[in-house]
Amino acid sequence: MKYEDNGYALHTDLYQINMMMTYFREGIHERKARFEVFFRKNPFGSGYAVFAGLQRIIQYIKQLKFSENDLAYLKELGYPEDFLSYLSTFSFTGSIQSVHEGEIVFANEPIIQIEGKLAECQLIETALLNIVNFQTLIATKAARIRYAVGNGGQLISEFGTRRAHELDAALWGTRAAYIAGFDTTSNVRAGKLFGIPISGTHAHAMVQVYGDEYAAFTAYAKTHKRVVFLVDTYDTLKSGVPTAIKVAKEFGDKIDFYGIRLDSGKMAYLSQEARKMLDEAGFPETKIFASNDLDEHTIIQLKKQGAKIDAWGVGTKLITAYDQPALGAVYKVVAIENEHGEMEDTIKLSENPEKVTTPGCKNVYRIINNGNGMWEGDYITLEKEIIDESAPLTMFHPVYTYIRKYVTNFKAELLLQPVFTGGELVYEERSVEESRIYCEQRLEHLWDDYKHETTEAEYPVDLSQTCWDNKMDFIHDLREKIQKRS
Amino acid sequence: MKYEDNGYALHTDLYQINMMMTYFREGIHERKARFEVFFRKNPFGSGYAVFAGLQRIIQYIKQLKFSENDLAYLKELGYPEDFLSYLSTFSFTGSIQSVHEGEIVFANEPIIQIEGKLAECQLIETALLNIVNFQTLIATKAARIRYAVGNGGQLISEFGTRRAHELDAALWGTRAAYIAGFDTTSNVRAGKLFGIPISGTHAHAMVQVYGDEYAAFTAYAKTHKRVVFLVDTYDTLKSGVPTAIKVAKEFGDKIDFYGIRLDSGKMAYLSQEARKMLDEAGFPETKIFASNDLDEHTIIQLKKQGAKIDAWGVGTKLITAYDQPALGAVYKVVAIENEHGEMEDTIKLSENPEKVTTPGCKNVYRIINNGNGMWEGDYITLEKEIIDESAPLTMFHPVYTYIRKYVTNFKAELLLQPVFTGGELVYEERSVEESRIYCEQRLEHLWDDYKHETTEAEYPVDLSQTCWDNKMDFIHDLREKIQKRS
Repeated sequence: MKYEDNGYALHTDLYQINMMMTYFREGIHERKARFEVFFRKNPFGSGYAVFAGLQRIIQYIKQLKFSENDLAYLKELGYPEDFLSYLSTFSFTGSIQSVHEGEIVFANEPIIQIEGKLAECQLIETALLNIVNFQTLIATKAARIRYAVGNGGQLISEFGTRRAHELDAALWGTRAAYIAGFDTTSNVRAGKLFGIPISGTHAHAMVQVYGDEYAAFTAYAKTHKRVVFLVDTYDTLKSGVPTAIKVAKEFGDKIDFYGIRLDSGKMAYLSQEARKMLDEAGFPETKIFASNDLDEHTIIQLKKQGAKIDAWGVGTKLITAYDQPALGAVYKVVAIENEHGEMEDTIKLSENPEKVTTPGCKNVYRIINNGNGMWEGDYITLEKEIIDESAPLTMFHPVYTYIRKYVTNFKAELLLQPVFTGGELVYEERSVEESRIYCEQRLEHLWDDYKHETTEAEYPVDLSQTCWDNKMDFIHDLREKIQKRS
Repeated sequence: MKYEDNGYALHTDLYQINMMMTYFREGIHERKARFEVFFRKNPFGSGYAVFAGLQRIIQYIKQLKFSENDLAYLKELGYPEDFLSYLSTFSFTGSIQSVHEGEIVFANEPIIQIEGKLAECQLIETALLNIVNFQTLIATKAARIRYAVGNGGQLISEFGTRRAHELDAALWGTRAAYIAGFDTTSNVRAGKLFGIPISGTHAHAMVQVYGDEYAAFTAYAKTHKRVVFLVDTYDTLKSGVPTAIKVAKEFGDKIDFYGIRLDSGKMAYLSQEARKMLDEAGFPETKIFASNDLDEHTIIQLKKQGAKIDAWGVGTKLITAYDQPALGAVYKVVAIENEHGEMEDTIKLSENPEKVTTPGCKNVYRIINNGNGMWEGDYITLEKEIIDESAPLTMFHPVYTYIRKYVTNFKAELLLQPVFTGGELVYEERSVEESRIYCEQRLEHLWDDYKHETTEAEYPVDLSQTCWDNKMDFIHDLREKIQKRS
């Protein structure tokens, strides 16, 4: 490689640099702008999503500088000296608001807001989306799997590193899964960096190395206190389980015979038979782990079949978000400073109606029922609006506007939290443990109707009348302008 | 974070460390073992796959050391001093053979072979799979998209960074796509690090910033020589295209009006209308770029519809391998040194027949027809076997053994290349440009029957009679042993 990899300033799309160049030349690169991150559809047919990615964004923003060799490369591409000189002094000076990691979020509401100089807002778009799209996707998939397994103490272990999309995805993906309810990871680096509990015992290879399950299990038991034997290398019921029991009996109290793991075959049947064998041998506490392309769908099926599985190893289907590997979050400008220094709203139209944006600087409120603590819906206002909690609130669907409800006795909670203000980190960073507890607590306030494997229930994400009117005015004005022109 | 992120030694599954510990205690950690990487099914219903990931593996192996804080973390987990002391001196001393990046590979053949001390082979499994699974998947998807677009000079640009699974996936994914036939990337960091051509012009946001396409396009044209205008911010045919033409006429020779980009709506229709407008305005050379969730399937449809698209922007569907986001490559031990210092073959049985491994140290040959240079199939032998190119070769299907063919006048080419020998890098590293050319040349020798969007044609990946007999003997012996035991 000609250039050393020394930072993420160039981890962006070229068009961001090109737009920065245009703004710079035109002298508008320091004009204020407001951008929003949102996605248009909850993933996996889910009724909600779980936000993750904030810690990584904070890391990214803090390190954001163009290195010497970044500038050398851009120079090689032909960018002029004055622009490069501007970049050489660049750092992020704007403000970012975001929901907490582990927050429950929904389609079509801002989950991150960025306000800053036009050029800096543009530069960071790509990396922010790259981070949020992936981590939020995995956290959401993990929460769905946790819901399928249930909150009754059954363990879920993440071990998808080998199938993750390169190294970062393994690391940050397993962190997102932990926040959303997984219990352990196999990735030792994630354990070291984030303090996530790690787990793992042995692979088929170890059995093959000894050529014999008895020898392999014995060797493992001699060298580890807590053991989970993988029992399907040759034949689960005829060889694996009986051998595990035999070794466990021989070692007695010297080991904690924590479990056996099934990794292939008819899992429900095998788990039932294995359970009987373990119980009869006097190991009713020994857990049965299952793995083999599991996710919420297969777990629900196995539970329906009466599988005797106590702990779940989840890899590929989680870490690749197998049934929908892209969230599709976007980053859209909603207001820009004009030449008189005033913020002006802006809209993007599109041939695809769902791609039309909602103009203006906004607040997002969670409307909480004071009676039972449950969430009535999310409510998006323009920033200048004030919500009167003592008066009834009219909420209406932003597309099917005749669907409406009137909420009384509620609390309106602001969802977005200041993270950077004027370039300074003002957010009190949370540990993964804190985010995990936060996620669990938040989910308790969401009706189960939105949590099923498939759901038709649509959680209300509504615009205030003022916000909705503003959007409609923009659409009509623009359409008129275009009609006149053609 | 308590510990700094300073290397990839712990980017592994915990069970690898636990098995290393068992082998270490049992004194067999330095016994020689042979492992193989292979996948069981070509992805995307494809007739082949394109290998990528070797450069990243070389990086990984070269940096492989346990840092002070890796050891501190393991100590905290309870690993004993003598084991930690052993890890503190650890480096990779084994041998790795791999196919070249850009090589065409197929299901059920070794694409990487690792021979080394048992403990070191085990440690690197996770990262190797993490890298190969992703990069090979993306290279394969990219090759399929290139085939759908055709080799006639139409440009394909990769710009999926925002939807990639975290930062590494964006970087290494776009590199894999370039090797397999993409022309440019939007990711500037990938351009800097790998020398891949980069491309990009402006986003919808720029039009919104100016509030008006005319002002926005003019600003861009004033500050860049080569321009591609994004024309769908308000209305493609009524506003975007006419404004692009107007600005291009005003600037005349001062800019290179390289293209317009369509990003939403009925792409075939819009492209046809836009083509007419451009031609009539005197811009027959100006290219029409299309983007919006494209992949080989939509590209084939658009071409069938007679879309007038000259260049393709591909993001989400490529970089996430949307229709199959995991390759499923595995890492299996095939031979292990016994207590007398001899290598002994080993097998893994399974309730799932496709999970049964093929024992023994092997060679993989590509059988090339001397008449037309086309590939007849791949042929896997035990290492001790010698292929006689002057005699007819019998190739038979490893499952449907009655499907067989007799090949004469052929050349048998060894696919796997030495990369590390005794821990030393012996491979002459290739640039992405070299790998890209290699991939293109190799694909010319593969019949088109294997390249279609969907194909029933199965490229032969056959075992030699000796290799097949050896596998069957193993299966029968083991089954007998298990029967006797039960």
